[in-house]
Amino acid sequence: MTRLAPIAVSLGDPAGVGPELVAEAWTRRESERLLPFFASGGASVLASAAERRGLSLRVTAIAHPSEAAEAFSRGLPVLGGHDAEYRPGEPDEQGARFALASLTQAAALAVRHEASAIVTGPIAKSHMARHGFTQPGQTEFVADASGTSRKAAVMMLAGPSLRTVPLTVHTALADVPSLLSIDLIVSRIRVVAASLRRDFGVEQPRIAVTGLNPHAGEDGRMGTEEQRVIGPALDLLRQDGFAVSGPHPADALFAAHERGRYDVAVCMYHDQALIPIKTLDFDQGVNVTLGLPIVRTSPDHGTAFGIAGTGQASAGATIAALRMAGECASYRRER
Amino acid sequence: MTRLAPIAVSLGDPAGVGPELVAEAWTRRESERLLPFFASGGASVLASAAERRGLSLRVTAIAHPSEAAEAFSRGLPVLGGHDAEYRPGEPDEQGARFALASLTQAAALAVRHEASAIVTGPIAKSHMARHGFTQPGQTEFVADASGTSRKAAVMMLAGPSLRTVPLTVHTALADVPSLLSIDLIVSRIRVVAASLRRDFGVEQPRIAVTGLNPHAGEDGRMGTEEQRVIGPALDLLRQDGFAVSGPHPADALFAAHERGRYDVAVCMYHDQALIPIKTLDFDQGVNVTLGLPIVRTSPDHGTAFGIAGTGQASAGATIAALRMAGECASYRRER
Repeated sequence: MTRLAPIAVSLGDPAGVGPELVAEAWTRRESERLLPFFASGGASVLASAAERRGLSLRVTAIAHPSEAAEAFSRGLPVLGGHDAEYRPGEPDEQGARFALASLTQAAALAVRHEASAIVTGPIAKSHMARHGFTQPGQTEFVADASGTSRKAAVMMLAGPSLRTVPLTVHTALADVPSLLSIDLIVSRIRVVAASLRRDFGVEQPRIAVTGLNPHAGEDGRMGTEEQRVIGPALDLLRQDGFAVSGPHPADALFAAHERGRYDVAVCMYHDQALIPIKTLDFDQGVNVTLGLPIVRTSPDHGTAFGIAGTGQASAGATIAALRMAGECASYRRER
Repeated sequence: MTRLAPIAVSLGDPAGVGPELVAEAWTRRESERLLPFFASGGASVLASAAERRGLSLRVTAIAHPSEAAEAFSRGLPVLGGHDAEYRPGEPDEQGARFALASLTQAAALAVRHEASAIVTGPIAKSHMARHGFTQPGQTEFVADASGTSRKAAVMMLAGPSLRTVPLTVHTALADVPSLLSIDLIVSRIRVVAASLRRDFGVEQPRIAVTGLNPHAGEDGRMGTEEQRVIGPALDLLRQDGFAVSGPHPADALFAAHERGRYDVAVCMYHDQALIPIKTLDFDQGVNVTLGLPIVRTSPDHGTAFGIAGTGQASAGATIAALRMAGECASYRRER
């Protein structure tokens, strides 16, 4: 079997914690058994961030992804001349432009299969939007770059304890009830099931679905979405042979004795999916985009401008995102 | 100092797990260092439930709460002749009537200070409502019984890891945004702060408050309740010297490194408050009613009719509720 192509890493906003965490991940590549990865640009950002964090990092320029695997043992491979000045905690225009270039190149390499996966560092969306970033977030950027409809790209959060999918994401809570539809639930859960098979090796995924309301509505006494929308959607999926259960009361679904009963919990809105993951797996949460022709993961935290350059940020989620990207790419190749 | 009056325990629906868990709590009274408590009726229910669970339980009839402390070491004290047949998993009218009688007597004794606190076992509200129970839940029942306005009675969930308060409770999610108001938030948080001082010995409670929307609205980009309602309410409270922080993004607030920074998290709706507690402390969650002239706690689980009588239900939450009731009553007396 040919060797897996290396993983492309975009550094995110260079004023955030992205560069220092990628640098640390490289220094821990052996103990964490990470597959080869390379940074999309940022040689001097990485060197400065590493020095500030007290890491012994060598940066190795490469001219093509195919050189990454061999270079990886000697230094952190960096592809591309785009770079920035390292000013932790001080987001500015040159940094935003660099972040966009780093992301653009990494995504293009994954689409061309010169990288087996892309791991994206954290950006500040509202800041980036003022400097040429037109998508609502990196998930939509990667969907667009890979020619995927944004509706088909589904966010999943994964940690050691749990996987969750929010069906609605960055929207006001008041808008959530009207955004839920039978079609949305059915189509997203189809993507989730197919991706767990293809990218995670779960042949018959057990999918637990939450209700929207307290106690899943308690037979319509506290809201009717379970009866009108969620329940009928799950019935359709069951008819097609999917192993879905629910709608479950969300509060009890994430207790330790419940978590072994499903492979993924599909939730109705952002906090319902993210509270349990961040409560249990704060430093190890990975954001995975399902439904794409490419593998994309990301550490599930923000730029953390406030602690960038201080050494306080944990590299756990970056390492977990690198490891998961490699695992997904391996599963995908085996099929 | 005179001895604390005993704790009154209502057994909840006799077809649920309430009786067997109270029986088990008594058998573990020494290792768990529980203060004396007595059951409000149900001598034969308790004896049958204990036998079925394989517990060695003696039941000791008492004629007045003042006899409970002395009787407690010899057997589980039971006050009152009301009783039921033990039919686990089969809720019926005689059981519902018994549950109401057990609750009514226990609450009355606490109001008269013949009991230092009341611990209420789980009932099935919709079932009870058909048999003479007119309140939406036991919290409102206890508020009514103690002459407290229902608005002043505030539910708090407490476990070993965390305390949370949902500002809205048993209501459809779609109704939550319109139910939140500056007045509601200010008045409930005043009750929370006063109760943490009086009943939990926290002199200057640090109160973290969540936003309603993802990322607490991100400066109004995903909902405006933080700017229009929650933020102004917290400003008013700060002006009055309360140590409130927020509105915080709810997803990150319950991570391990955040939990030490506050004494209680005040949340906007049911699942936002209950997901983290049940995720972390499933078998030890206690529901405490703040703002009452009496101390009231309850194990934070339902009747669990499906496993009643099988021995599977954990007594952890019942024991935690008994212990917390004793602690709150002790703090309250010291003041």
